Amino acid sequence: MTNSATAQRVSVIGLGAMGTALAQALLAGGHQVTVWNRTAARAEALVAEGAVLAATSAEAMAAADLVILCVLDDPAVREHIEPAAAQLRGRTVVNLTTTTPEQARSLGAWALANEVDLIDGGIMAVPSMIGGPAAFVLYSGATAAFDRFRAVLELFGRAEFVGADFGAAAMYDLAILGGMYSMFAGFQQGGKMVRTTGGTAAHLATLMAPFLQAMTTMFAQYAPGIDDPDNYVPEQSAEFTASALGTIDKAAAESGTHTELFGVLLRALPGI
Amino acid sequence: MTNSATAQRVSVIGLGAMGTALAQALLAGGHQVTVWNRTAARAEALVAEGAVLAATSAEAMAAADLVILCVLDDPAVREHIEPAAAQLRGRTVVNLTTTTPEQARSLGAWALANEVDLIDGGIMAVPSMIGGPAAFVLYSGATAAFDRFRAVLELFGRAEFVGADFGAAAMYDLAILGGMYSMFAGFQQGGKMVRTTGGTAAHLATLMAPFLQAMTTMFAQYAPGIDDPDNYVPEQSAEFTASALGTIDKAAAESGTHTELFGVLLRALPGI
Repeated sequence: MTNSATAQRVSVIGLGAMGTALAQALLAGGHQVTVWNRTAARAEALVAEGAVLAATSAEAMAAADLVILCVLDDPAVREHIEPAAAQLRGRTVVNLTTTTPEQARSLGAWALANEVDLIDGGIMAVPSMIGGPAAFVLYSGATAAFDRFRAVLELFGRAEFVGADFGAAAMYDLAILGGMYSMFAGFQQGGKMVRTTGGTAAHLATLMAPFLQAMTTMFAQYAPGIDDPDNYVPEQSAEFTASALGTIDKAAAESGTHTELFGVLLRALPGI
Repeated sequence: MTNSATAQRVSVIGLGAMGTALAQALLAGGHQVTVWNRTAARAEALVAEGAVLAATSAEAMAAADLVILCVLDDPAVREHIEPAAAQLRGRTVVNLTTTTPEQARSLGAWALANEVDLIDGGIMAVPSMIGGPAAFVLYSGATAAFDRFRAVLELFGRAEFVGADFGAAAMYDLAILGGMYSMFAGFQQGGKMVRTTGGTAAHLATLMAPFLQAMTTMFAQYAPGIDDPDNYVPEQSAEFTASALGTIDKAAAESGTHTELFGVLLRALPGI
């Protein structure tokens, strides 16, 4: 689907599994792609598909209107962009490296001081999902730059802009992953409980998965309790939630399996 | 769909919202339904639909091959069945009252001693869902009796037998609800986090719900780690999980929102 009218010059810095998938999506979208990786051999397949391999990351950045960073961590990002401040002036940098919200904000302050349009991103997909229907990527920071490059970024997956705060994408990313790990911890605890009755976690998985899928629709119903707690009337009384969690905690205790999780929920949840 | 060839005599003791929904499903299925409730007025609509109102719960039990109990709690169950032991001998009792696994086992011991076939159940639905495609009910205990009455019980929703242990249905029920509350706690914590970036829990709900729906498919992948830990090779290393949770916990701490939940996950989850 090459379209020279909208083709952009895009560089991808960092060719791990994710960076490689991003570069492939850009090539498939018909863009002029320059790549750089510490180990140049990882670029071979991309060069065969039409990418240009730059000799240095600074050279790659100078060759593009849009620079995508997908490296190990925040210090690695700094190592690449700080010496290249002059080349990056007036360009747009999308940092898809996993960082904390504070690290993203600190990088945003550097970008403002150096007249770089920074967009921080959080990828909600594994590399094999990039470009597919289930992938989405959270973005925050330079709003006008996001609007300008939105069509390019949509090549990776659905592009979801969550605010001008440079740290917002990382915060949404970590909030969603925190929800995922909370759910996994609930399954793990439940699996241990049912095993004490002769059941299996495998059987529980077949029952819990569709039930929790259906229950995710409650998030929208509970959101006003977080966004506007003063005007929120809980779906179920704090007493009801506490009583239910008390019974669950008691069953976990009786079963001799770990109960720290439900104790925390008992303190956190009443009033949902 | 009356079918006299398979019509059974079924009694429902307790006509709260759930007991009423169960009795309606039985009537719709063409069974001979006898009901009893402490406040007889609650039976009026059911009587108009063809149910017979018994004067006492013992009379209702004596009128049926299958007795459904849906009362307040375990002491209320005992109050009805203990004086009616003679009437119940040789009959099947399905207790759909919410109890703990230990209470269900204790009731099971009473039933064995009194030659009553006891099935304990846990309803995974709200009353309005009874008889619909999304409802399912967990059962455990007297296996032959469950097989005999399975077609009747399927009128409430999909009937899922989880073992001969009288406490198994209650344990699966509470394990599934524990997973649900764990997921809700993760959403609540995440909502607080994104609000510190100018985001909203309402926006997070639209992003987290489909992501967690997709991630429930991981339960089946993690189950062998609980069922057969000695032969389990984790999907992601304990170090990776701990590092991800550490970043999430750090972001929660930086945002000034509650962090007890992620601290617990950090201790519980590595090795999934």
